[in-house]
Amino acid sequence: MPDSVHLKPDLPSVLSRYRDVLDLALKDTVSDRHVFLYDMLRYCMGWSDADGTPLETEKGKGVRPSLCLFTCDALGGDIEKALPAAVSLELIHNFSLIHDEIQDSDEIRHHRPTLWNIWGVPKALFAGNVMRVLADRSMFTMLSDDPKLLSASSSIVSEACLEMIEGQYMDISFEGGNSITVDQYMKMISHKTGALLRSSVHIGAIIGSRDGRDVDIFREIGVKLGFMFQIRDDILGTWGETTSTGKPVGSDIRRKKNTLPIIHARETQTQMYKKEISELYSLESLEDHHVDRLLDILDATKASHYCQDMVENYALEVIKDIQNIRFSNNSRGDFRELVSFLVDRSF
Amino acid sequence: MPDSVHLKPDLPSVLSRYRDVLDLALKDTVSDRHVFLYDMLRYCMGWSDADGTPLETEKGKGVRPSLCLFTCDALGGDIEKALPAAVSLELIHNFSLIHDEIQDSDEIRHHRPTLWNIWGVPKALFAGNVMRVLADRSMFTMLSDDPKLLSASSSIVSEACLEMIEGQYMDISFEGGNSITVDQYMKMISHKTGALLRSSVHIGAIIGSRDGRDVDIFREIGVKLGFMFQIRDDILGTWGETTSTGKPVGSDIRRKKNTLPIIHARETQTQMYKKEISELYSLESLEDHHVDRLLDILDATKASHYCQDMVENYALEVIKDIQNIRFSNNSRGDFRELVSFLVDRSF
Repeated sequence: MPDSVHLKPDLPSVLSRYRDVLDLALKDTVSDRHVFLYDMLRYCMGWSDADGTPLETEKGKGVRPSLCLFTCDALGGDIEKALPAAVSLELIHNFSLIHDEIQDSDEIRHHRPTLWNIWGVPKALFAGNVMRVLADRSMFTMLSDDPKLLSASSSIVSEACLEMIEGQYMDISFEGGNSITVDQYMKMISHKTGALLRSSVHIGAIIGSRDGRDVDIFREIGVKLGFMFQIRDDILGTWGETTSTGKPVGSDIRRKKNTLPIIHARETQTQMYKKEISELYSLESLEDHHVDRLLDILDATKASHYCQDMVENYALEVIKDIQNIRFSNNSRGDFRELVSFLVDRSF
Repeated sequence: MPDSVHLKPDLPSVLSRYRDVLDLALKDTVSDRHVFLYDMLRYCMGWSDADGTPLETEKGKGVRPSLCLFTCDALGGDIEKALPAAVSLELIHNFSLIHDEIQDSDEIRHHRPTLWNIWGVPKALFAGNVMRVLADRSMFTMLSDDPKLLSASSSIVSEACLEMIEGQYMDISFEGGNSITVDQYMKMISHKTGALLRSSVHIGAIIGSRDGRDVDIFREIGVKLGFMFQIRDDILGTWGETTSTGKPVGSDIRRKKNTLPIIHARETQTQMYKKEISELYSLESLEDHHVDRLLDILDATKASHYCQDMVENYALEVIKDIQNIRFSNNSRGDFRELVSFLVDRSF
């Protein structure tokens, strides 16, 4: 699998700085108390191969835990205190990936076979559930000296989880639908992707700052980061290169997903393309020439431009929001670098 | 579906006394914040039909939450304080049922089509996950005035969840295996079924009593109740009547499950039956005459007697254990009645 070891472009410092401390804490939480079950978790986290051989491969970007630790850190908080929540967020993200892959019948993630693809649906389902419990345990065991903080963080995370699942449910309910609006889409992604990202900076801010205003601002920033993240994901799912994303070009179209480019194309030029998109999306399966035709329609409706504009507008907003936060100059620079990455990322 | 309204034998008072207060609290937790998703949950709980029509049908037995409230109550505690945990336990039980049915491809539970059978696997999977988050929320929102108790209860429940999933994982890993021993089986069910039952009385005791000895005794009682419960389940899955269990006679055999009767039959008369059971269990699917033959082997090995003896021995032990608890005479009577029910139950 040569694809799996190709070099990725540099990560922004926010996503690399806490890498080691996070990996250590994650490995500490995903113990090997039950070897044959935990093999799946270690594989999922990118620490080992399917047969249990330790692996030094690329991991996920760790956006959520890094955002949590950075927010806490930049506000002058102790990252040790935020670490259990950061670990919890990363595990919840992985829990949702494992179940998502089952639901979408995704065979590959990050150039590797997905869990259900190797171990079957029932075992993969358990692996997801265990990941979820370990996320709870990370909170409980490590924050037990500060029950109030535990209670606040746990409430935020469980609320985010609920919203995330509701968003995922909306997403699959949209499948096959021809009249999803941009508004409905935005609501869906604010739940599916936004909720957990929002809770990452929200908890980071709660632990890092005693100023309720900081917390409120970061909560808002989190919402916008969520939009940026998912819309950029839709762009990559439509036009991204396989080597970077691990998915073929047009993969979201081939799977007839209601992504923002498609929804926008249907909404903006109703008379011209709505019917044609609906007809193509109602086919049993899409051939290459169908995908090409849909990509042409997206070109004609300037869908890429429209989506990227939205990402950049949210980027401008969060850069503005951050001006109201008492960050050091260094932290402000780090944050800008992260935002630039989220705007342009190709993976 | 006339089966679904048939009358059940009387429940012991422990399982009926808290019914109303539990139902109210459960309905309060499973709100309708997101109608189309929560319809599935209300269906699962037996409150409504698949199309959302409210239903007055038989519910689950509510063993876990009732045990939690009874233990707290009988030890002199305030059941209001234990209610969030009781609700949480019932929701976790339902979460595990929903996912279990997906994994086992069970089409029917309690005479009704299962969730995945109506709404498909992806949506049912979400319903299970939401149930799990609502379980957390029940803890967080209602116990937030007592963070120490929240922390203790949450830890116990998350540990139980982890053990439960590990046990379920062991269970499916055993599938197709011909050499599972009674010891392995006992370890598996102590996780799969025992962990959550144990945590029910454990939390009830923690909230109800300040005496650490009571708590320890109840934790032990919980382990034994778990064994009783699962072994009786295996008996019902092998010889139970459809009208009571909602499953056909011999259903566990037909599905080639490694239940205690089968494991015992393989272990006790190795030379005589081990090979034959293995051969039958390795068939693609079992016909009626295969099931009949296996039932004959279970008769010849006195499997029913062996299993029921185990249930009764555990019953004697818990009755003895309870003598060391400062219960009122009424509570002692209630507990004995519950234990008798668990020994003889036909559903």
